[in-house]
Formats: sequence, C-alpha cells, structure tokens
Amino acid sequence: MHSFAALSALFEDRFNKRHFPTLPPNLYDAAQYILKIGGKRVRPVAVLMGNELFSEIDKDDAYEVATAVELFHNFSLIHDDIMDKAPLRRGVPTVHMNYGESTALLSGDVMLVVAYEYLNKIKTDHLHRILTLFNKTAKEVCEGQQLDMDFEKRPSVTLEEYVQMITLKTSVLLAASLQMGAVLGGAGTGNQEHLYEFGKNLGIAFQIQDDYLDCFGDPQKFGKQVGGDILANKKTFLMIHTMEVANSTQLAELQLLLQNNATDKIDRVLQLYRDCKVDEWANQLKEKYYDIAMKHLDDIAVLENRKVELELLARYLLQRES
Amino acid sequence: MHSFAALSALFEDRFNKRHFPTLPPNLYDAAQYILKIGGKRVRPVAVLMGNELFSEIDKDDAYEVATAVELFHNFSLIHDDIMDKAPLRRGVPTVHMNYGESTALLSGDVMLVVAYEYLNKIKTDHLHRILTLFNKTAKEVCEGQQLDMDFEKRPSVTLEEYVQMITLKTSVLLAASLQMGAVLGGAGTGNQEHLYEFGKNLGIAFQIQDDYLDCFGDPQKFGKQVGGDILANKKTFLMIHTMEVANSTQLAELQLLLQNNATDKIDRVLQLYRDCKVDEWANQLKEKYYDIAMKHLDDIAVLENRKVELELLARYLLQRES
Repeated sequence: MHSFAALSALFEDRFNKRHFPTLPPNLYDAAQYILKIGGKRVRPVAVLMGNELFSEIDKDDAYEVATAVELFHNFSLIHDDIMDKAPLRRGVPTVHMNYGESTALLSGDVMLVVAYEYLNKIKTDHLHRILTLFNKTAKEVCEGQQLDMDFEKRPSVTLEEYVQMITLKTSVLLAASLQMGAVLGGAGTGNQEHLYEFGKNLGIAFQIQDDYLDCFGDPQKFGKQVGGDILANKKTFLMIHTMEVANSTQLAELQLLLQNNATDKIDRVLQLYRDCKVDEWANQLKEKYYDIAMKHLDDIAVLENRKVELELLARYLLQRES
Repeated sequence: MHSFAALSALFEDRFNKRHFPTLPPNLYDAAQYILKIGGKRVRPVAVLMGNELFSEIDKDDAYEVATAVELFHNFSLIHDDIMDKAPLRRGVPTVHMNYGESTALLSGDVMLVVAYEYLNKIKTDHLHRILTLFNKTAKEVCEGQQLDMDFEKRPSVTLEEYVQMITLKTSVLLAASLQMGAVLGGAGTGNQEHLYEFGKNLGIAFQIQDDYLDCFGDPQKFGKQVGGDILANKKTFLMIHTMEVANSTQLAELQLLLQNNATDKIDRVLQLYRDCKVDEWANQLKEKYYDIAMKHLDDIAVLENRKVELELLARYLLQRES
C-alpha cells in the first residue's frame, strides 16, 4: 500500500511526458500546455488508490485509466475556462488566452479523444465495464457544467439543486476514479458502490469546504484572496443557505449588496453570513458528508488496515487533524 | 446487398429517435436539435456498406458503429460552426445561434461521449480494434480543422498541404467508416486497407467537386449561391492552383481582387479561373482521385458483384452518369 504522496509521485513520473503528436503544433502544444500547469492529480491517484485497496499486482491498466481520467479532467478545465471566460488558471493564462478560443476548444476535443486512447490500452476483460463507467461520468460532468451555467441565470437555487449540481460537476469524477480502480482490482459490485459513495460524499464535503474557505479561509494558507465568490455573486453553499434562513431585514440588505458593488461588499456579506451563523452551519454540513463518506469506507469488505491510506486522503483533502 | 438508398432508409429508421436524456433540457435539446436538421447520412451508411461487402449477418454492431460515426460527425459540425462563427447550417440557425456558444460547446462534448457509448455496445471481440480506428480518425479530424484554421491566416498554401488538410478534415472519416464496417464484417487487413483507400480518395474527389461546384455549379441543382468561397477568400483547390499557374498580370489582378470586395469580384475571379483553365484542371484532378479510388475497390478480394453498390455510391457522390 502506498500513500497518496507516494502514488502522486509515481503517477507524475509516468504522466510527465508529451501525450500528443507534434503536428499540427498549435493544436497539440495548446493541449500539452495545460498539463504542464500541474495540479494535485487527486483523481488519477484516486484510481491508483481504489485499485490498491483490492489488489497490488498488475497495475499497468490502473495507470492507463488514471492517465485517461487526468486528461478528461483537463479537457473539462479547458472547455469550462472558455465558457467562463476565465483569464487565469493557477496563476497563469488559460489555454484560450494563450492560443485563442478556437484552438483551445479543439485542443480540449482532441484531449478527450486521447483520454479514450488510454482507456483503449487496458485489457479486454475490463474494457466494456470501464468505458461504461467513464462514459456515464463524462456525461454527468457535462450535465453539471450546464446546470452551473443555468443556475447563474436564475434568481434563486435550492440547496438540494446546488448539491446535485456540485455532485455532477465535481464529485462524480472522484467517485468514478476510485470505482474504476476498484473494478481493475477485481472488487465486487457491493464494494465498488461503497467506494463510489465514499468518493462522492468526500467530493461534496470538499466543495462545501472550498466555498467556506473562499469566505473564511486564511488567505496565506488558502492561496487566494478571500471573498472572490462574494464579489462574483456566486451561488455557493453559504449564499444559498443565507437566503434560506435570513430574516426580511437581512434579506433586503443582501439583495442590495448583490445589486451594487459597494466597496465594503465582502465585509458586509461576511457579517451577514456570521449573523445567520452559516459559517457554523457550513462546517456542520461538511462534517455530515464526511461522516457519510467514512461510513461507506467502513462498509467496504476488506481488512481495515488496507483502508488507512484512503482515510488519510480524506483527512488531507478536508484539512482534518484527526 | 442493399443499395445506398435502402440502407439510408434503414439507418434513418433506427437513428430517428432521441439519443439523449431529458435533463438538463438546455444541454440535450441542443444536441438533439442538430440531429433533426438531417443530412445525407453518407458516413453511417458507409459503415453499413463496408460491413455488407463482407458479411450479411449479425449487423447490430454495424448499426451501433454507424450511429457513433453520425454522432461524431455532428459533434464536429457543432464545434466547427462555433469556430467558424457560422450563422446557418442547411438553411437553419446553427446550434450556437439557437442555444448560445457555451451550451453548443457542451452539447458537442456530450455528443462525443454518447458516440463512445454506442461504440461500447458492440461485442468485445472487435471493441479494441474499432476504438483504435475511431480514435485515430477522431484525432485526424481535429488536426484537419486546426490546419484549416492555420491556413486561413497564411498568405499561401501549397496544393499538397491543402490535399493533406482536406484528407484529414473530411476524407478519413468516410474512409474509416467503410473500414470499421469491414472490420465488423470479418475482412482481412489487406481488404480493409483497400476499402479505406477507396473511401479516402473518393472523399478527396468529392471535395474537389465541391470546390468546383461552388464556382461553376448550377445554383438550381447545387442548392447554394455560386461564388461563396470566392467572396470569403477561401483557399480552395481552384484558388490554390490559380496562384500556382497564373502569370504575373493575372496574379496581380487576383491579389487586388482578394484585397478588395469589388461588386464584380465573383465574375472577375471566375474569369481568371477560366483563363488559367483551372476548371478543366479541377475536373481532371477529380478524375485522378476517382480512378485511384476505383483501383482500390477493384483490388478488394471479394466477388465483383458484391462491389456494385459501392461503385454506384461513388458515381452518385461524384455525379457521374457512367
């Protein structure tokens, strides 16, 4: 059994190469560019960890699927950045800023195809099952992105709708990554499903934390300015819940703040959040999803000591000390 | 053995249904929208014809691959239309005009994933091989589109470069469609390759004809206004060859016409084409590729009478009476 850090280094070692032909250079340089920006590689490592939970032999197929998952993730980032008109990702220009929208669009397309090339390298006996899971998840990620765009245009969104959107847009890929690793490791369907639910709920908890840290995180540790979501009027867990629990005076102030970009907008929205105790609520909600995730990990029928690295991963992602 | 028309009707009968879930409606309605615009369905029928050339049993897999090919083709149309900022396709608004660029982009993405869902329905024994061919072709189509965009920004393009771009952008999908049908029909690799080359050269001949008809076609029969490529300064077979053979006076006039949109631009460029005899040249070039295609069809080792429908298809696509 390897730690997340160890598998991350092993994956990076294999992944850190050119995945594309050289010609035409515009197209493939744009595709390679985003891969070099880096990232935590959480999803591909989840494939490897899901695999190691059940098997420690014959890992080549797990690396192929892990590579496909990371390429898929980057394909979705390129296209999301076009749709969101995002100028920067991880502090450097996005693909469309560097290569133009058309080439960025096309480099995303070709990256998705190359993801399928990696999937097609695995042995025949798991190919149908892995493709089924991968395709289902890929569709869900597109659905999540569409819902996210739809929600931006709506005056209000329920918490349930937001959880569904976040689940599709971000959590199912982590969940399916773990499950695909488990499939390759020979896990039974019951164990596969528990592992999927572990990943899905962990992903939701992670997103609640992300929304929380954008408001209440230490900018030194968090690495970005506090209040970005507030400035952009994003419907986050905190904003949605505030709208549900605020009294009429608070709601009126919130609506006013959303309509005008007052210079003290961030501070005043944060004060409203505190007044409505959504900071405490968000932490409790994160704990709720974390607990569901851990319950599913508990229910996986393998020796407890095999689960240690996944427990550590969950704590690492959710910044827990115990 | 069925005719193109008969297979086209059989395919349309199966294809004419909703290929997507209902939610989120924006995303999937956009995807379904382009499929309803229609088209000749040449590529999926090519899968069926390639299959029938070698086998007349067990056609379900051929229909799955045919459906995947048609979805892939429509995915590429949606994304190409975004890149080209095209307002219309087949006389109706393009997907991005009707649903916005972001949803169009995403509906293309999800359509590509659904294409892979159809591929994943085929029996295991051909899955690796079909995916290999499909992925290779999908990458090539992206490369062709990138080259097409690159060429637009360049002052000149050689005939060889243009043939390569056209081959990637349009011909390889027809070629691979035939070949995938042949794979499913149990053809040997030699026969597969001849069939692929038949399709590839037929596709190039078809594009030469398309460029020719845009200049010299009967607008009644051709269904669109003559001279669209000239107005858009497109580097077509005719334009590229004219630049290669024109004398210095003709070249100077052509450059002037390209820089200014004179009201008689179309007529004057057409006259230059005639003066340089590129109309005759284009017909000869089309014949050359047609002959290569037919030679490869000849070389396929099946009974001659099995090839009749493919010969008729070639004549139909290239508007030949004999």
